[in-house]
Amino acid sequence: MTDLPRLVSFMRDGRPGWGAVTGPVGGPVAGVADLSARHGGRWPDLSAVLAEGALAPVLDLAAAAAADLAAEEIAFLPPLPRPGKIICVGVNYPDRNAEYRDGQEAPPHPSLFVRFPESFTGHRRPLIRPRASRQLDYEGEIAVVIGRAGRHIPEQAAWQHVAALTLCNEGTLRDWVRHAKFNVTQGKNFDRSGAMGPWLVPFRDPAQIADVRLTTRVNGELRQDDRTARMIFPVPRLLAYISTFTTLKPGDIIVTGTPAGAGARRDPPVWLKPGDVVAVSATGIGTLVNGVADEGGPEDRP
Amino acid sequence: MTDLPRLVSFMRDGRPGWGAVTGPVGGPVAGVADLSARHGGRWPDLSAVLAEGALAPVLDLAAAAAADLAAEEIAFLPPLPRPGKIICVGVNYPDRNAEYRDGQEAPPHPSLFVRFPESFTGHRRPLIRPRASRQLDYEGEIAVVIGRAGRHIPEQAAWQHVAALTLCNEGTLRDWVRHAKFNVTQGKNFDRSGAMGPWLVPFRDPAQIADVRLTTRVNGELRQDDRTARMIFPVPRLLAYISTFTTLKPGDIIVTGTPAGAGARRDPPVWLKPGDVVAVSATGIGTLVNGVADEGGPEDRP
Repeated sequence: MTDLPRLVSFMRDGRPGWGAVTGPVGGPVAGVADLSARHGGRWPDLSAVLAEGALAPVLDLAAAAAADLAAEEIAFLPPLPRPGKIICVGVNYPDRNAEYRDGQEAPPHPSLFVRFPESFTGHRRPLIRPRASRQLDYEGEIAVVIGRAGRHIPEQAAWQHVAALTLCNEGTLRDWVRHAKFNVTQGKNFDRSGAMGPWLVPFRDPAQIADVRLTTRVNGELRQDDRTARMIFPVPRLLAYISTFTTLKPGDIIVTGTPAGAGARRDPPVWLKPGDVVAVSATGIGTLVNGVADEGGPEDRP
Repeated sequence: MTDLPRLVSFMRDGRPGWGAVTGPVGGPVAGVADLSARHGGRWPDLSAVLAEGALAPVLDLAAAAAADLAAEEIAFLPPLPRPGKIICVGVNYPDRNAEYRDGQEAPPHPSLFVRFPESFTGHRRPLIRPRASRQLDYEGEIAVVIGRAGRHIPEQAAWQHVAALTLCNEGTLRDWVRHAKFNVTQGKNFDRSGAMGPWLVPFRDPAQIADVRLTTRVNGELRQDDRTARMIFPVPRLLAYISTFTTLKPGDIIVTGTPAGAGARRDPPVWLKPGDVVAVSATGIGTLVNGVADEGGPEDRP
């Protein structure tokens, strides 16, 4: 699987583009083939590629294209510039349910919340610690990108609706998660408090997500370490459940939940601060790396 | 204020369009000026009008345009075809907080959740009762449409960011609201379980929303009846609070909460069923009327 082309969205010289990354998934980026320069008239961005169901021909083009940019020439954006619905799963690993210490068994249905695109930045850009809170926390997750529309998707057909995988640091402001009577909306939606990327890995086989290792490191220290086989609600079940109420469409993203080990659950809690580096990794998908910067500080450049 | 042009999005002969409605706000639609036929090259839809900050010139065009379609020739769509973030306020009227009977005082911050555009239909189209639940309930609300981007908006400047008002029936599947440990996402996002419209009323004066009567009638029976002056979190405070964490942008919509009197709070609860007609009205904004149809039934036509 390591030679599948990976697709990226980026800024270069102040303009958005998209293309394919070359080099091994686990290693450094060898180069970038700028496909927007060659096919941007046909597909202005990766959201258009997905909306038109054109992932297969674009991957063929990517496989044949030589790198024409060095990794340093681009700034990574979240891989989909105009995502559809971003639906996040709240508690999807067993130890994490236990972390809530409320004596409840694993819930019968997944808890779901929504993030806006504005709440994410790209690979190698800083997560923003807002002026309103010091409690910025990481959550490493795998995100599933929908490629085919569907409502009432049966579990056994769910994989047919998945186009790609990516990683998510589902950065959270812990005190703002419990600001109100219900819902975590505000603590999950501070501008650029999370990250998505580095790239889209085309989905070919359930083995790419069925039982892979998912880790989060902060300044090199292993903080989260689990395997996706332990998800309470595996991906097919999530797609079946979510599509009971809403039509999933190309470009929608399901963020599948984080393992135990977030900073909030340490004793005492440990929050992210400027200078920290967070790395979310999953076998076969890659590593999403982000620093941390203060809102309005010198490193806060959208 | 009654002679402000009201802007609508619609389907006509299977194609989307937009225009202005003529006739008094409280009365029947006299006609529709099809502005998409005249200016669709410049602004393909009302979302483009807002994104380009072109509401003022479009209202001038609307004021000068004669109706060229009869009301029966169009099918109403939600007024913004490509809305941005749709942020809903959970408990914003005092009696409604009391309805929860949990002994808590009014909360210090608003509870916020998110709806997807797919969860809304237009004026005079049926709300869809899904196969998955019989507990379809109404919630009449006023929605505020953002016209100018902002982060950290001060309360005293908030009105400058409001472009228009509309109505919302924030239709809810009550059993699915409490399906999981946290969050109401799924019960608020069944496809076309709610409605938005009929139109955008341009915002000119805080008096248009500061203290107006908001009612919901089911089959003519008054079920919800309150005044917006009783909001726990008035619109300027909502915009200030929400923009603490996210950048509000043109086309974003804030749904400002519903008064007491939803069907779930009746004893015994009363749910909506096919054949019912729900009418949400606010003085100076209009009346949003929707029937109810079963998912997959003969009246379920997207």
